[in-house]
Amino acid sequence: MKKAVILLSGGLDSTTCLAVAKSKSFSIYALSFRYGQRHEFEISAAKKIARSSQVNDHVVLDIDLRAFGGSALTDNIDVPKSRDGKIGGSEIPITYVPARNTIFLSFALAYAETIESQNIFIGVNALDYSGYPDCRPEYIKSFEKMSNLGTKAGVEGKSKIKIHTPLIDLSKKEIIQEGIKLGVDYSKTHSCYDPAKNGIACGLCDACILRREGFEKANIKDPIEYAN
Amino acid sequence: MKKAVILLSGGLDSTTCLAVAKSKSFSIYALSFRYGQRHEFEISAAKKIARSSQVNDHVVLDIDLRAFGGSALTDNIDVPKSRDGKIGGSEIPITYVPARNTIFLSFALAYAETIESQNIFIGVNALDYSGYPDCRPEYIKSFEKMSNLGTKAGVEGKSKIKIHTPLIDLSKKEIIQEGIKLGVDYSKTHSCYDPAKNGIACGLCDACILRREGFEKANIKDPIEYAN
Repeated sequence: MKKAVILLSGGLDSTTCLAVAKSKSFSIYALSFRYGQRHEFEISAAKKIARSSQVNDHVVLDIDLRAFGGSALTDNIDVPKSRDGKIGGSEIPITYVPARNTIFLSFALAYAETIESQNIFIGVNALDYSGYPDCRPEYIKSFEKMSNLGTKAGVEGKSKIKIHTPLIDLSKKEIIQEGIKLGVDYSKTHSCYDPAKNGIACGLCDACILRREGFEKANIKDPIEYAN
Repeated sequence: MKKAVILLSGGLDSTTCLAVAKSKSFSIYALSFRYGQRHEFEISAAKKIARSSQVNDHVVLDIDLRAFGGSALTDNIDVPKSRDGKIGGSEIPITYVPARNTIFLSFALAYAETIESQNIFIGVNALDYSGYPDCRPEYIKSFEKMSNLGTKAGVEGKSKIKIHTPLIDLSKKEIIQEGIKLGVDYSKTHSCYDPAKNGIACGLCDACILRREGFEKANIKDPIEYAN
């Protein structure tokens, strides 16, 4: 079986991405990050999903993105409600974490190189999150190219690292439809940027709004609870 | 003053690189990593150098590269002596850490984006360490391109991230000559991969051999002590 490293946040997208990789018969090595999130519910969801998906291994890495600051997801900045939180007039949301996907993919690359895998899956999505620069196809292609220049495999010409983005052109509705087809249990996933202390999703942040819209459009009941 | 992020390991190359950035009137933001090295002498050297170089800020990040394993620098594999430690017949040394520079540069990118700097300095060197894939100019160029696609600055077209590699074409001898010209105090630097418990350099590993050869060729006395 071919090995694949999957970036697993515990959210709807990465969980669907994992299911896609499994459906393609990859042996799964999941990778999650504890990075100064405002809550630990993501990690707990990722662990549950990894276990129930019978992954080969699941590494949870601690990295301190708070050391630099700069985002509502890692700082004490309020998470914006109703999709109005943009940075200085641009279309990039304030929930953008500087270079986050670049850091995540770099660790995935180290993991892949260590287990001699040439496959990395990331659940980025260019349609719903077009505001994030590091979710765009041209960025992913460029990361892939860099990976093949900066690793043993690339230099020795033995094999090529491939960054798989099975969700990149799908809408949230289509992602959910794909996941349901593959048997994903979305009750285990966690999407909210700003959950209550008991983990209940706020229902008002960007992530909640996109998720709910997706389920509505797919005409499927979202199995998680919302506070609002 | 323009800001620059400098990757500072506390070794000869990164310390010279910092001096070059200072000589070009950059305001310095140094970044070091505690990454499961076999010793803490590197961090302690980096701190001393940052202080004496009057940097604007110095961030030391903990990242656990041991989570993946795979290198003599992070695992319990013996550090090879006399430059004979190659991985499986290839020319890549066993001291190569998977995707290390990619991870380091990714954090430097996050730091740069947060402080609104467009300049990152890394003391890679293609001549002496040609065995490391992630020290090659084509790799660095590729990382730079990816950076400009994956960040706010790149998307908004406001400014371009530049990865500066002032040492990339210099021999160890030339690096030392450049540093001496800029007033670098090499007694504060630490290069050995396998120091004794008191921090004294072994004199036998790759890093020690290259360093000593450099000083000899430059006809300058190396101010540090060696056990052998």
